[in-house]
Amino acid sequence: MKLLLKISYLGTNFCGYQIQNNARTVQGELNKASHRLFGYECDVTGCSRTDSGVHANVFYVSISKKGFPDLPISIPLENIPSAMNTYLPKDISVHCVGWMEEDFHPRYSVKTKEYEYRIYNCKHRDPFKNEFFWHYAKEINDLQFEQMQKAMSFYKGKKDFFSFMSNGSDIFDTVRTVDSVSLHRENNIIIFRIRADGFLYNMVRIMMGTLIYVSEGKILADDIPSILEAKDRNLAGMTAPAHGLYLNKVIY
Amino acid sequence: MKLLLKISYLGTNFCGYQIQNNARTVQGELNKASHRLFGYECDVTGCSRTDSGVHANVFYVSISKKGFPDLPISIPLENIPSAMNTYLPKDISVHCVGWMEEDFHPRYSVKTKEYEYRIYNCKHRDPFKNEFFWHYAKEINDLQFEQMQKAMSFYKGKKDFFSFMSNGSDIFDTVRTVDSVSLHRENNIIIFRIRADGFLYNMVRIMMGTLIYVSEGKILADDIPSILEAKDRNLAGMTAPAHGLYLNKVIY
Repeated sequence: MKLLLKISYLGTNFCGYQIQNNARTVQGELNKASHRLFGYECDVTGCSRTDSGVHANVFYVSISKKGFPDLPISIPLENIPSAMNTYLPKDISVHCVGWMEEDFHPRYSVKTKEYEYRIYNCKHRDPFKNEFFWHYAKEINDLQFEQMQKAMSFYKGKKDFFSFMSNGSDIFDTVRTVDSVSLHRENNIIIFRIRADGFLYNMVRIMMGTLIYVSEGKILADDIPSILEAKDRNLAGMTAPAHGLYLNKVIY
Repeated sequence: MKLLLKISYLGTNFCGYQIQNNARTVQGELNKASHRLFGYECDVTGCSRTDSGVHANVFYVSISKKGFPDLPISIPLENIPSAMNTYLPKDISVHCVGWMEEDFHPRYSVKTKEYEYRIYNCKHRDPFKNEFFWHYAKEINDLQFEQMQKAMSFYKGKKDFFSFMSNGSDIFDTVRTVDSVSLHRENNIIIFRIRADGFLYNMVRIMMGTLIYVSEGKILADDIPSILEAKDRNLAGMTAPAHGLYLNKVIY
């Protein structure tokens, strides 16, 4: 059987999850660490692909011996998280492990994923939040925030989100089902959460950037349905920066 | 008049507050930024000296023209925080400014300071807390935590804290008055807070390390009074790492 690992990582210094030549990636680090720990090359498969700079509060990966359907181990299962963590850099952590069912796939078996986007809305930056929040300095008043919430409500449902996808993806079916969305603020922190059966390239970041455009009056809340219908990326707002985005939950 | 700035900084990439040759310091960065903003060299005086890696949620500095008692400015006072922030690196932020009274000194006028020490007490590290918490992996049970709290209670009062001072300081009077101490935990987070009229070199970090030794049974809670009386650094516990420590409040 393959091993399933529940991990988290700080995206700041990674060129995303997926392995690349000459770039530091989460998958690349997991490959190296599992090779060192188990003594042979491994296949590491992730539950998602996060972009450069995007964080993961929760992320699942499967590990098996390269080219084999299983992972022969000689150390007790419960020791694997600590052992992996000694071989991994500090910006990745393994929290727990277990054996996968035969028909389970870390990516294709995902039913729902939740992303969280964090904004620090304050005139002056907070040095403790630089890498963890999008620092948006312009004041958002209550009326503007209400408009953002109204706009957000149009994201819910089974829709074609083509207008909320960046170029550079080879996906044809751009229909996704958004199960839930929320936008909260407390003091200077704004949290946008969205759950869906799948996400298009940069979808959450464009959704967030569009909500900010709504707060600025560049887009009207009531325009969101027509932006969706138009299937035109140019009508949606900016792509919010990567460092405010977290893969927050993965539901199988 | 001199200008007083309320700032905060992330200590991770600073060799402490105080200016040094060939080292990145908070004072050094403030010197450069004020020179660029005001167009002349400035004297920058801080409310405290924090060590390498120590953070400041709150910190005050005064700025005046080098060798002069005042700071001639040509921009509106309210624009100074934003203007300074554009010249400062992202790990420092200026929150607000004001003019100082003549007899006010950012360091000598301090009545009380509060430090906070943060521990992440969990078997596996959290990549989002690496730079902000001391990751202490060993489980601390309720009985052990109660002993830490008991030990902590002996820190309160006017006492000679010589045993809780690292070598390398040229201070003779090691008596300080601790106004309040507290030790809380919620889930995996332990927070130690201490307020005093002054602190010795590494005092809070040795106090924290000693509490951890108490949790490990290496020191008994009831031994704290005799450790204080002995005036012997070797009897106290380890010096907890710098990156869990925050200057939290400065009261004038």
